[in-house]
Amino acid sequence: MAEDIVALAEGGVTSPRGFLAGAVKAHIREDWDKLDVGMVYSEAPCSAAAVYTTNRVQAAPVTVTRKHLRDGRAQAIVANSGSANAATGERGLQDAIAMAEAAALMAGVPAADIVVASTGVIGTHLPLERLAAGIGAIELSPDGGDDFARAIMTTDTRPKQVALRFGVYTLAGAAKGAGMIHPNMATMLCFLTTDAPVAAGFLQLTLREAVDDSFNMIDVDGDTSTNDMVVVLANGMAGGEPLDEAHPMAGVFREALTRACIHLARAIVSDAEGGTKVIEAVVEGAADRADARRAAREVARSLAVKTAVYGSDPNWGRVLAAIGNSGCAMEEPRTSFWLSAPPGPEICLYELGSPSPFDESKARAMLGEPDVRFRIDLGMGNATATAWGSDLTEDYVRLNSLYTT
Amino acid sequence: MAEDIVALAEGGVTSPRGFLAGAVKAHIREDWDKLDVGMVYSEAPCSAAAVYTTNRVQAAPVTVTRKHLRDGRAQAIVANSGSANAATGERGLQDAIAMAEAAALMAGVPAADIVVASTGVIGTHLPLERLAAGIGAIELSPDGGDDFARAIMTTDTRPKQVALRFGVYTLAGAAKGAGMIHPNMATMLCFLTTDAPVAAGFLQLTLREAVDDSFNMIDVDGDTSTNDMVVVLANGMAGGEPLDEAHPMAGVFREALTRACIHLARAIVSDAEGGTKVIEAVVEGAADRADARRAAREVARSLAVKTAVYGSDPNWGRVLAAIGNSGCAMEEPRTSFWLSAPPGPEICLYELGSPSPFDESKARAMLGEPDVRFRIDLGMGNATATAWGSDLTEDYVRLNSLYTT
Repeated sequence: MAEDIVALAEGGVTSPRGFLAGAVKAHIREDWDKLDVGMVYSEAPCSAAAVYTTNRVQAAPVTVTRKHLRDGRAQAIVANSGSANAATGERGLQDAIAMAEAAALMAGVPAADIVVASTGVIGTHLPLERLAAGIGAIELSPDGGDDFARAIMTTDTRPKQVALRFGVYTLAGAAKGAGMIHPNMATMLCFLTTDAPVAAGFLQLTLREAVDDSFNMIDVDGDTSTNDMVVVLANGMAGGEPLDEAHPMAGVFREALTRACIHLARAIVSDAEGGTKVIEAVVEGAADRADARRAAREVARSLAVKTAVYGSDPNWGRVLAAIGNSGCAMEEPRTSFWLSAPPGPEICLYELGSPSPFDESKARAMLGEPDVRFRIDLGMGNATATAWGSDLTEDYVRLNSLYTT
Repeated sequence: MAEDIVALAEGGVTSPRGFLAGAVKAHIREDWDKLDVGMVYSEAPCSAAAVYTTNRVQAAPVTVTRKHLRDGRAQAIVANSGSANAATGERGLQDAIAMAEAAALMAGVPAADIVVASTGVIGTHLPLERLAAGIGAIELSPDGGDDFARAIMTTDTRPKQVALRFGVYTLAGAAKGAGMIHPNMATMLCFLTTDAPVAAGFLQLTLREAVDDSFNMIDVDGDTSTNDMVVVLANGMAGGEPLDEAHPMAGVFREALTRACIHLARAIVSDAEGGTKVIEAVVEGAADRADARRAAREVARSLAVKTAVYGSDPNWGRVLAAIGNSGCAMEEPRTSFWLSAPPGPEICLYELGSPSPFDESKARAMLGEPDVRFRIDLGMGNATATAWGSDLTEDYVRLNSLYTT
């Protein structure tokens, strides 16, 4: 199935047929001179699905978007950086509604078909006049995907985009997020577009699965923001029968969506605040899926593992302690794990309950690479999972402590 | 009830009647020249209770101590630093048994009445000959408590001890722990002694409660070691009727035990690797106790909060996001929180759903103090909880990454 999906070297949210995008500098923050409000627009109404933050504190745009997507339909996205419109009370809610209305007016679609998203400082109100003027000035174009991807950046050092082709269809996306917070610059946002005619119910189901295998498996600092949102719009403009679980392309679509989400999730980890490496934790042989996820996430989350990887220290005891700390079913005599710098070869660090002798200088060299993988076999069953984390550096601390509100 | 408990200015595990202690340099690590093996001995057999690490990887001494304490009795403790005797397989188990036997021989009590504990590097075997010779050379004395407290230190910068008097009884303790790991120098250890005649069942019950309110409410880096252990020995040598829940002193004992554990837990946080401040998170008005604990722990755990406190940044949005991230029942319009540097006055940062205007220079000054408190009122009910965490600094990262195995 995998060979039916082709990654496009360049591309973004406007790669699928019928999607336009654009962005402007609206000066949401007076000290910023960057693209900070962007829109994505589909020439046809779309099926839409979304997954939101689990934080109990939810920003106003999350509340508004939830309401707008209740009918599984949308036609445009408006998103700003610079202010999260979170912890802003009733006025924040009115502002998010006004932001949707400004976008609706510009795009000529009902406000109820607008996805609204914000990222930036918590507790500040949106500068509504500048924002509305900015939205009115956006020029939508088939080449606007890159500008859109840049408009949602906060502490990100680079835009994050993906585009995949499967059959006659294209799926693409843009994301932002670089550590929860610098310092209230919260938030992971991801917007996906496709010209496949995906049915709303199937879109929601597959998005939930894809997010579980991607954005829910990354860890920068263990925090969840008030504004996190992953949205997918499917406009069906590449034609064909409605795509649901009974469709022959169902499996390929599911795979493409998961792959796009994993690509963007990894891009977020690799651009983590202060991070220098991506740690991939692959767990195999777990008793069940929940255990596999738990163990993989804990290895990627553990500050002890993160700091050891940062220091290129082949400190296998920390990996073992993280597995034990995860709460997964495990027994030391059944546990083995390996280190590698993909696509290079693996070396065994721990085998069936005992430390495995290894060449320390080789291990240090692997840990010096930008991609570091721990593959863990629990020997308890057949379930697997993969998680990704950044390393933890002095720069993370510096970025997150020396900022002045 | 509180006025019946008096903190002693000096004191440690030998403050209660009938307890002796001592320590020697056994050179467990060849590059160390410090006290690294110690013993505590009671002149009479004791009721004993313990709480152990929840990590699925459990060190050999944990396994042996669990077995020895199954009958609720013990008479001596032997503990070493320098090697954790963890991830050491069958040989490690034999070594822990041999360590208990050496201590039993020295103290003249059955090996089954010995508590064994180790802390230090994971995956190295104990140097049994040096260790046994060291144990044989320990001189037990009523003044040996301080030496014992020093012998269990690894990256701790100072010994951690407490002694309390309630009625005719004394309760005391020593602990170590300073961040999970530097780098495999894992482990939180705590040994408590009392001359009160506490019944074994009541001792276990009250220890579990005290640990839940103290060691289970501290966070340095979110990790749990393979060797964590809290043990209490009660020798009854101060006389009186067996102390259980029906005893008039039951409440005072429970309070004293909790207070001793909180004192030592805070001492661990305040000596955290790289830490410069203790963050106290007090949650009030939670819907239930579990929610209160969850919210308090998440505020103390959040890297975003830890780094903001380190940078003296009164970043209330991070506190709000941490509360929301904890999963506790909360509603923004019912939530308020305050900042203080105890025992100084509080300033309100957030009141019933809205940011509260505050004097930023005052807030920064409070955050510059070694003790920083966030008091949070969720307005959902009557449950309360308190948690403690260290701040997160560049030094933590440095200590944990630049170490060479």
